[in-house]
Amino acid sequence: MTGTVYLVGAGPGAADLLTLRASRLLAEADVVLHDALVGEDVLALAGKAKLYNVGKRAGRPSTDQRFICRLLARLAGRHRIVVRLKGGDPSLFGRAGEELDACRAAGVPVSIVPGVSAGFAAAASLGASLTLRGVARSVTFVTPATAKHGVPSNEWAVAAANAETAVVYMGAVGAARVRDELVSRSVPASRPVALVENASRADERIVRGTLSELPELAAQLGDGPALIVIGEAVAQASALARSAAA
Amino acid sequence: MTGTVYLVGAGPGAADLLTLRASRLLAEADVVLHDALVGEDVLALAGKAKLYNVGKRAGRPSTDQRFICRLLARLAGRHRIVVRLKGGDPSLFGRAGEELDACRAAGVPVSIVPGVSAGFAAAASLGASLTLRGVARSVTFVTPATAKHGVPSNEWAVAAANAETAVVYMGAVGAARVRDELVSRSVPASRPVALVENASRADERIVRGTLSELPELAAQLGDGPALIVIGEAVAQASALARSAAA
Repeated sequence: MTGTVYLVGAGPGAADLLTLRASRLLAEADVVLHDALVGEDVLALAGKAKLYNVGKRAGRPSTDQRFICRLLARLAGRHRIVVRLKGGDPSLFGRAGEELDACRAAGVPVSIVPGVSAGFAAAASLGASLTLRGVARSVTFVTPATAKHGVPSNEWAVAAANAETAVVYMGAVGAARVRDELVSRSVPASRPVALVENASRADERIVRGTLSELPELAAQLGDGPALIVIGEAVAQASALARSAAA
Repeated sequence: MTGTVYLVGAGPGAADLLTLRASRLLAEADVVLHDALVGEDVLALAGKAKLYNVGKRAGRPSTDQRFICRLLARLAGRHRIVVRLKGGDPSLFGRAGEELDACRAAGVPVSIVPGVSAGFAAAASLGASLTLRGVARSVTFVTPATAKHGVPSNEWAVAAANAETAVVYMGAVGAARVRDELVSRSVPASRPVALVENASRADERIVRGTLSELPELAAQLGDGPALIVIGEAVAQASALARSAAA
């Protein structure tokens, strides 16, 4: 037999921010390979599946990506529905590229189920729109993490510095570098920023300030996954209130 | 009484790409104000709600945004759950800014429910990751639509030209301008592009080529909403296959 591998977005954290399709696939799945960050309440939806935790977290022991790819292809030879469950959306910083390629190389049908990326949950928690008429019509999602097997690159900083709103994934640990790279590319140090830790979860935490204060703001957070949102849109509510009063 | 206004992402089109939370809120809603692009199968989830179509589509008669804002605040004075249902995610090109502000100005509680933006559904349909290890670690979402009441701006083109992967919303109609603005900013005319019309819907259509061919590719589509995805990540499957063969 040949089953199908589904690369499924688990959404930002809250179990009810899964899509209906993801929820149905989890209920039908024979096997689920999941990240460390996927919560127990989400995994509980996979009632009959065998679960594999193949989680990777920055700075911690992780399952080798090549092993995950091989495992996906092998499991599809034994099971009808193999779900690879990833935090957020599979196509954004989810290593979907390698897994798509491995499945295709093995002749295994593979399908992506999109999900709500954490950046959108962060915007929702901030009560802000990432785009704002007349203020921000470009939003850039970047990650400053350095490639292990590649040449270090600052293209993420170029992209972030040239967007009106930037959402930085996995950047809180290196907050000083994020600030310095952006300020050196002429992003105003006074630009509003917000950090959202554990977006959409019960233990969510938000801190706000300016780009110049980014390292101090990041130091106020715990060790949960955190997003940095940078741009005038972050300060939207107060800005619009001022404009209405003018 | 004062009800709550929920700005809810309806996702990219397919009804099962709604979140569980959006689905539940629709079932409980007393009133739903929806865009023209939200499908009948999604609206059917709002079993007991009075529906208002306040849809805006480029180049067609539309409901004035100020009217929508006033209506939201007024309805919250008469109903417990008022849902403002928007295609994709409310925070990305969804005019959420004005509606958040209107609700706050009127003292009406307002909450955002994030959704799957069409760009992620387009990537899923393309079978591609928007980010790709060693190739693309920045993704920019832009729209080239010109503001009616603002100064025309090319900042969208600056942002798109500086990202490794660019997703252009509402850009297929002005495809020649999109190509010209990007090529004039040193984006290679040979860069892979894909257009996805009606992403995730039954009538989805995909065309692929290079940036130089963008106007001809766009001319092959119908009049459904279309996204342009630009970057090496679009050509991922074939590129990775070549690299594996090397």
